Amino acid sequence: MARILTGIQSTGTPHLGNVLGAIRPAIELAKDSTDESFLFIADLHSLTQIKDGAELRANTYSVAAAWLACGLDTNKTVFYRQSDVPQCTELAWYLSCFYPYSRLALAHSFKDKADRLEDVNAGLFAYPMLMAADILAYDANQVPVGKDQLQHLEMARDVAGRINNKVGREVLIEPEALTNAATMYVPGTDGAKMSKSKGNILDPFADAKSLKKAINKQIVTDATPLEDPKDPDGSVVHQLYQLVASESDAADMATKLRAGGYGWGHAKKDLLEALVDGFAQERDTYNRYMADLPALDAELSKGADKARVVAQATMGRLREALGY
Amino acid sequence: MARILTGIQSTGTPHLGNVLGAIRPAIELAKDSTDESFLFIADLHSLTQIKDGAELRANTYSVAAAWLACGLDTNKTVFYRQSDVPQCTELAWYLSCFYPYSRLALAHSFKDKADRLEDVNAGLFAYPMLMAADILAYDANQVPVGKDQLQHLEMARDVAGRINNKVGREVLIEPEALTNAATMYVPGTDGAKMSKSKGNILDPFADAKSLKKAINKQIVTDATPLEDPKDPDGSVVHQLYQLVASESDAADMATKLRAGGYGWGHAKKDLLEALVDGFAQERDTYNRYMADLPALDAELSKGADKARVVAQATMGRLREALGY
Repeated sequence: MARILTGIQSTGTPHLGNVLGAIRPAIELAKDSTDESFLFIADLHSLTQIKDGAELRANTYSVAAAWLACGLDTNKTVFYRQSDVPQCTELAWYLSCFYPYSRLALAHSFKDKADRLEDVNAGLFAYPMLMAADILAYDANQVPVGKDQLQHLEMARDVAGRINNKVGREVLIEPEALTNAATMYVPGTDGAKMSKSKGNILDPFADAKSLKKAINKQIVTDATPLEDPKDPDGSVVHQLYQLVASESDAADMATKLRAGGYGWGHAKKDLLEALVDGFAQERDTYNRYMADLPALDAELSKGADKARVVAQATMGRLREALGY
Repeated sequence: MARILTGIQSTGTPHLGNVLGAIRPAIELAKDSTDESFLFIADLHSLTQIKDGAELRANTYSVAAAWLACGLDTNKTVFYRQSDVPQCTELAWYLSCFYPYSRLALAHSFKDKADRLEDVNAGLFAYPMLMAADILAYDANQVPVGKDQLQHLEMARDVAGRINNKVGREVLIEPEALTNAATMYVPGTDGAKMSKSKGNILDPFADAKSLKKAINKQIVTDATPLEDPKDPDGSVVHQLYQLVASESDAADMATKLRAGGYGWGHAKKDLLEALVDGFAQERDTYNRYMADLPALDAELSKGADKARVVAQATMGRLREALGY
């Protein structure tokens, strides 16, 4: 049985792209799997960017609520806040002492962020060591990563290997990357990949009124008259509808667009309906959790209790080997 | 009442220079003071340089035993191992997110070490953030520092100020440097400042045989014949004797050297005797502790228990303010 570990960024409320592209596939995968899975909200990572306490806290809660609303089974998946397991920051120090400064300075993500961001803090630089600790603390065997995180995973493997080599035995498990993790391309309201930074997101947990406003305001359609035939394939409205409606409903919309007499306004209305209805249950659960933060805290604490036990055992093993 | 915090390096067994120049003055200071003092063995810092577990552990124990042997009162001073308070590595992460990478890159000590050392690891680079955490976790008001640590203390003040400023209130106490701490110049056996790296040390906890060997082998004297007068002031033997013998015994040796008929061999023998006798009690206590590591562990754990309570309160305050 492998242990699979996934970190979730919490720099904003999950949007439709996150839900369809990452949350649902991960939950589906966990359901069918006999593997053990650890899933954490990377709220310590968030601190490299978010310095407003209220915003950081709200993000953590909304990410947690979104995963639970989408059906994450916390009896099966160890679900916790990164910051609730101080063993990870502790481990990060030990790892740092075994990792060459020059290699850390070569990290793509830091160079990229140092170019883009105004606040280039030491946490951004040290981050790959914390990420390595997040993985190594839990003896994770497999880590689903996107291309942008592949180098960080390599660093985690590298530092684990250096320590094992120095100590003369396997005190840390060298994790493998799972790069074939199912991901889905979700277009934003402007057709580019849906992403918070592009301002092209739809929030499936929002109420009908907000969703309607976002769809109408953000999705730009051409001026083809109502009665004329339209091309569903080149249309963001139809692309999004395909992702949230049933197959037959999506085929229906395509037929109606091609036939003419069905305008972009109708299509947007159908998309809205599909979003409002399709996420009704998730929205309810999400709102229930957001109105009952102690219940959210309880779920996250349950996971943190389990996670700390594993991380503490790793720290004990490592500390003994290093002379502590 | 101020809280004074001191970190002790643990990269080797304390030598005569450490005992006379740092340990004894600090213990004397603590005795007379109404201030509260925290004293920790910086064993996490050691990991930046020492990768051998047995050596690191032995160093920690011998440093602890030396301080206890010199009369440290652990009921008055909170005495602990840095690594026993994981809140410090935790705090270091939070601090890193508020400290500009570019400023950290300017640290003198890192540049100096990066030039000298073969193993330039990320821990060396991140170290000032850990040192800041070591100070800030305990709400220390005053930190006795040498010139080489002044910049690190400035960094601690700086990052505390940045966080307080962002949060809008004083969540971290900005510490002050105590630069007038009593320090004593102790020459090594070659006349230069006694320092492990120079190989000119004497170990006051060593047995008579080892001390005799070190004194005879390491201290080079000139070939002035036994019967000729000698200059006590230019002699390392006399300089060291002055530091360990009583004032009248030191004056006696000076008189005898000036008078002639008293050779360097006699002077070395008197120095040996002064060291063997003068540190007899300390040596006994040191050896007793080194033969009873559980007793040492118990002393250090007692301190760590107290230290963790303070550090945990600081972390709670900070985490709340930052959105955790």
